[in-house]
Amino acid sequence: MSDFRDDGAAALEWAASYLERVRDLPVLSQVEPGTIRAALPDRAPAEPEPFAAVLRDLDEVLMPGLTHWQSPRYFAYFATTASEPGILAELLVAALNQVGILWRASPALQELEEVTLAWLADLLGLPEGLHGHIEDTASTGLITALAAARAASPGKRVVVCSEHTHSSTAKAARLLELELRPIPGDENHAMRADQADLSDACALVATIGTTSSAAVDPVPALADLCADAGVWLHVDAAYAGSAAVCPELRPHFAGWERADSVGVNPHKWLLTPMDCSAFWSRRPDDLRNAFSLVPEYLRVSEDVVSLSEYGMPLGRRFRALKLWAVLRCHGREGLQAVIREHVRLAALFEGWVRDEPGWEICAPRHFSLVCFRLEGSDEENEALLERVNATGLMFLSHTRLGGRFVLRLAIGNARTTEDDVRLAWDVLRREAR
Amino acid sequence: MSDFRDDGAAALEWAASYLERVRDLPVLSQVEPGTIRAALPDRAPAEPEPFAAVLRDLDEVLMPGLTHWQSPRYFAYFATTASEPGILAELLVAALNQVGILWRASPALQELEEVTLAWLADLLGLPEGLHGHIEDTASTGLITALAAARAASPGKRVVVCSEHTHSSTAKAARLLELELRPIPGDENHAMRADQADLSDACALVATIGTTSSAAVDPVPALADLCADAGVWLHVDAAYAGSAAVCPELRPHFAGWERADSVGVNPHKWLLTPMDCSAFWSRRPDDLRNAFSLVPEYLRVSEDVVSLSEYGMPLGRRFRALKLWAVLRCHGREGLQAVIREHVRLAALFEGWVRDEPGWEICAPRHFSLVCFRLEGSDEENEALLERVNATGLMFLSHTRLGGRFVLRLAIGNARTTEDDVRLAWDVLRREAR
Repeated sequence: MSDFRDDGAAALEWAASYLERVRDLPVLSQVEPGTIRAALPDRAPAEPEPFAAVLRDLDEVLMPGLTHWQSPRYFAYFATTASEPGILAELLVAALNQVGILWRASPALQELEEVTLAWLADLLGLPEGLHGHIEDTASTGLITALAAARAASPGKRVVVCSEHTHSSTAKAARLLELELRPIPGDENHAMRADQADLSDACALVATIGTTSSAAVDPVPALADLCADAGVWLHVDAAYAGSAAVCPELRPHFAGWERADSVGVNPHKWLLTPMDCSAFWSRRPDDLRNAFSLVPEYLRVSEDVVSLSEYGMPLGRRFRALKLWAVLRCHGREGLQAVIREHVRLAALFEGWVRDEPGWEICAPRHFSLVCFRLEGSDEENEALLERVNATGLMFLSHTRLGGRFVLRLAIGNARTTEDDVRLAWDVLRREAR
Repeated sequence: MSDFRDDGAAALEWAASYLERVRDLPVLSQVEPGTIRAALPDRAPAEPEPFAAVLRDLDEVLMPGLTHWQSPRYFAYFATTASEPGILAELLVAALNQVGILWRASPALQELEEVTLAWLADLLGLPEGLHGHIEDTASTGLITALAAARAASPGKRVVVCSEHTHSSTAKAARLLELELRPIPGDENHAMRADQADLSDACALVATIGTTSSAAVDPVPALADLCADAGVWLHVDAAYAGSAAVCPELRPHFAGWERADSVGVNPHKWLLTPMDCSAFWSRRPDDLRNAFSLVPEYLRVSEDVVSLSEYGMPLGRRFRALKLWAVLRCHGREGLQAVIREHVRLAALFEGWVRDEPGWEICAPRHFSLVCFRLEGSDEENEALLERVNATGLMFLSHTRLGGRFVLRLAIGNARTTEDDVRLAWDVLRREAR
C-alpha cells in the first residue's frame, strides 16, 4: 500500500494543482484531429510502468488535447462543475468498486441511490414518493421513459415533442422504432401546445430548458393534454432542473410534478462530476414491465426489487456516493447560492448585449444561458465564434434559432466570476471589430 | 484549495486503509433490506457539512451495507478488482471532468479511447483496424450491436443465442422488439451449432465464457453459419475475454476474430474499476447508420466522427484514462500474471472438489470459474450456500445447470491467494457437515 499512498499523494497533488491552474489554460483544445493519437505508442507496454509515467504523459501528451470543462471561462453547450466533494467521492467510489447488479451485491449502493434521489426530489420541489434512480446520461433516461411508455400503450407508436427537443429524443425514437412528431415552437421557442396532436401517441416529451435556447415548454397545458389522452409525459429538465433548488425559479417548473417521468442532470448544473443523471417516475411498475428480467443466477431470497429492473443496464456504479457528498458538502443553501450567482451573471451579460448597438438578444433568458448574435450575416457570426474560441481565453458554442446562426453563452462553472464574464464580453466585442 | 488538499488526503487515507482492511470485513453485507435507508436522514442538509462528515458516515452508516467486491474472498458472480492505478485514475477523471459529447469537447478523451481500445485489441489477439469504443456495461454494448444488426437486416427480427446466454440478450431483444430464439446447449452447456436455425435472423449472439458456467460456444462453426446467412455475429466475452491476454488461453477464443462485434469487460477481469466495457466492431458504418444524429448545436468544422455517433449515449466519461493507467501500470506481463494465477487457483480448487467424496464438478472449467455442488438435493445446496455466505468469510453465488442448483466459485480479485481459496474450501466442507 505504500505505492498506493505515494502514487495517490502525487495524483491528488496533480488534481489540486490542475484545479488551481485550469483558469489559465486555453479553454478549447487547439490540436488538430489525430495529434493525440499520433503522440501515443502503437501498443501497450509489455512490462509495468510506474504511475508517475501516467501523470507525466497526462501533462506532456494529453494536456494539449483537453478542452477544459472545469475552466471558469468554459461557456459552451452547458457549462458544468465537478466540485471538490464530488471529485473526492469518485476516489472512494473507485476504491470501493461496488457493482450494483442486485440489492445484495451492495445494499448501501441501492438504498443510498434511493435516498439521494428522494433528497434531490425534495430539494427541487418534486412530489414525495416517486421512484428515483440514477442513469449515466439523460439520453439513457429518455430511452428508459419511452420504452416504458411504449410498453404501456400497445399499438401507439408516436412520440410528440417540440421541434427544439434534444437530439436524444430522435435518437431514442429511432432505437425504439417510434415515430417522432415534432411540434413547432412559438416565438420564444417553446412548444405550441395548441398544435400538439396526440393521436396515436404513447409519449410526449416536454422540455424545461431546451438545449438551443433554454426555452420552457408549456408543461401545465401539455400535462392536461397528456392526462386526457392517457399519454406518458416525460419532462426533460436535464440542464435547467437543478435551478429548481431556488424557490424563486420554481415558476418555470410549473406542472412538472404531474409528469410520468422527469430527468435532471446533476452532472450539468449541480456540481456533480460526470456522469450522474437523475431519473424519477411515478410509474415504476411500467418501468419494471418494460425492463425487469431476473435470471436464475441473480435470484435470491430477499424480497427486494433491484434497481436494474427499472432500466437498461444490469451493472451500476456507486454514483449515489458522489451525489450524496455533493448534496451534503454544499447543502441546499450552497447549491442555491451557486445557481443564483450564475443566473445573476447571465442576466448581467444579457444586459450588456442588449445595451450594445450592433448586437442582439435572440431568445428570452430564463436561467443561465444567453442566446445572442452580432447583427450581420450568419457567416460573420460563425467566423466570430471561431476567432473567439481560437484565442483560448474562452469557449462558446452556437445554435440556430429561426434559421439564424446564434451564439450561446452558458454559465455553469462554480469558479466563474463577474470578471470572467466581463472578459468574455470584452473579447467578443474586440474580435467583432 | 487547502480544503481540497486536506480533504483529499483524508479520502486517500480512507481508501488506502480500506484496501488494507477489506480482507477482514464480512464479504457479503449482512443487513436487512431497508436498514441503510432507515439510518439516513429524510432530507439533505440546509447548510454545508464538512467532507469529514461524509467519511464518518461512510464508516458508521454505509459500511454495514457494503458487499466487499474488493475482498480477496469475494467469489460470487464474477469477481473483480479495481486496481490501484485504476482507482487513482478515477480521481484524475473526476478532477478533469471531461464530457465527450463530440471530438472538440475533448480530443484527448476520444483519441485515447480509440488508442486504448486498439492496445487492448492487440493484447487480446483481435484483428487490427477494428472500430473500438467504451460502453458502461456489456448490456449496453449488446443493445448497440443488436440495434446495428437490426438496421442492417431489414425485415429480419430474430436473435439467435444459446439457452445459456446472458440475460442482457433477452433484455436487449425486448427493448429492440426482436424475437429471441434460444438454442439448446450441449452436455458442456455450449450452444449446439447443429441446431442453430438462422432463418429470419438479424443477429447471433455467441458467448465465450457464459455467466452460468463459463461455457464456450463453438464460435468457428457459428461464424461459418453467420457468414453464409449474412447474419451479424456478436461475441459476448464480457468475463472471459480478458483471459485472451494469455496466449495459452487463446484457443478458447478461436473464431472471435471473425465476429461483427465483440464485447469484453475490463471492469470484470482486467483490473479496471467499474465501469469499463470494451466494444469492437468491424462494421462501424452500420453502427453509425443506427445511431448517428448530429444536431445543429453540435455541428462543427472538423472532419471527425464523434464516438457518440456509434452508440446510445451522447455524453461520455473519460473512461479511457483509467484503462490507459491500468494497461500501462500492469503491462502485458502483469496482466498475464494475474490471469494465470487465477486460472491456477481455480484449477486447484476444482481438483480438491473432484477428489472429495460427496462433491461433484458440474461443468468443464476453462477459466477461473468452478461450478460444483454437494451430492444431494437442491435444497441442501441452497441452504449450504446461505450458511456459507452468512459466515461473512466469503461470498459465493449460484446458478442452475441441467435443472440442478449449482454453486459457483469465481476467482477474479487480485488479492486472492491460495490460502483464501483453501479457506473457502474448508468453510464449504465444514458447513456441509
